[in-house]
Amino acid sequence: MKMSEGVEWASHACLLLAALPPDAALRASDIAAFHELPSAYMAKHLQALARAGVVKSVRGAAGGYRLARPPTAISLWDIRQAICGPGPDFVCREIRGRGPCAAKKPASAACFVAHAFWEAERLQMEALQQTTLASLMITLAASYDADGLTRFRTWLAERVDLEAPSSPVDPAAPPG
Amino acid sequence: MKMSEGVEWASHACLLLAALPPDAALRASDIAAFHELPSAYMAKHLQALARAGVVKSVRGAAGGYRLARPPTAISLWDIRQAICGPGPDFVCREIRGRGPCAAKKPASAACFVAHAFWEAERLQMEALQQTTLASLMITLAASYDADGLTRFRTWLAERVDLEAPSSPVDPAAPPG
Repeated sequence: MKMSEGVEWASHACLLLAALPPDAALRASDIAAFHELPSAYMAKHLQALARAGVVKSVRGAAGGYRLARPPTAISLWDIRQAICGPGPDFVCREIRGRGPCAAKKPASAACFVAHAFWEAERLQMEALQQTTLASLMITLAASYDADGLTRFRTWLAERVDLEAPSSPVDPAAPPG
Repeated sequence: MKMSEGVEWASHACLLLAALPPDAALRASDIAAFHELPSAYMAKHLQALARAGVVKSVRGAAGGYRLARPPTAISLWDIRQAICGPGPDFVCREIRGRGPCAAKKPASAACFVAHAFWEAERLQMEALQQTTLASLMITLAASYDADGLTRFRTWLAERVDLEAPSSPVDPAAPPG
């Protein structure tokens, strides 16, 4: 079982958007180009993020996508759910209720096998919920050297107005 | 992202095998019939379990499948891996290394996004590794009433020799 590659794409796209000044937006084609990704597929993932309320589509000449919430309020779990869809990975079809030895009365509690899988998924979910874009931005900013930072600011300045009032997260922090 | 339904099937199949006396084996068609599952698909999942060393194929008139290890040494993680394949769900394609602002030197450490997803998966893995067939058998045995137990023992006695020396896990404990 492999997660959609869209989760990696969407995570890095959201980190890029987290570096924008407030109210600035970036076009889908620029978001795709930033990591040399196919524009059409990236657009599909951005639409999924928008449907899930993680990003917001902005119309007009300076339009594109921006985060719908502050980077402190968007987690990797939000992004994973937006791309992979809601609901647990383990789907219980209650097969214990079938066959010659099934209990005659249907059990009220969830099957203990499903319960074990869901408990394990819950641990994964909680860890991803605790990993916000804001926390990742800190790690990311520390990994860039001066040259990388300059190239990123130049790239960004060609696309958005960096002189707008500064974002709650330092716009100088480059995206992943 | 949904897990293969084979994980549920294989988990319950292994619990059924955990209830067998030592050295007894159950035919794939009986394992499928126990939960009214399609025999061909069940056979495919049993073969995957055998390749992963979770179950063992036994030839001959009393042949079929049995567990390859004691129920204390088989976890839900083993079963999940046998059906879903090895490796993490999150696959890192290092897209941070591409595009106009990528670091000029490739980073030696794993991408921080991948690291976060893998850490969350590790928590899920550890929880599933701690859930053995033996621990599930205890929960399962407690959920059966006397009538269910009798029906299960009758069904089993028609297929395997229950008078063989008793298993380390009580063969009276019915499967899920």
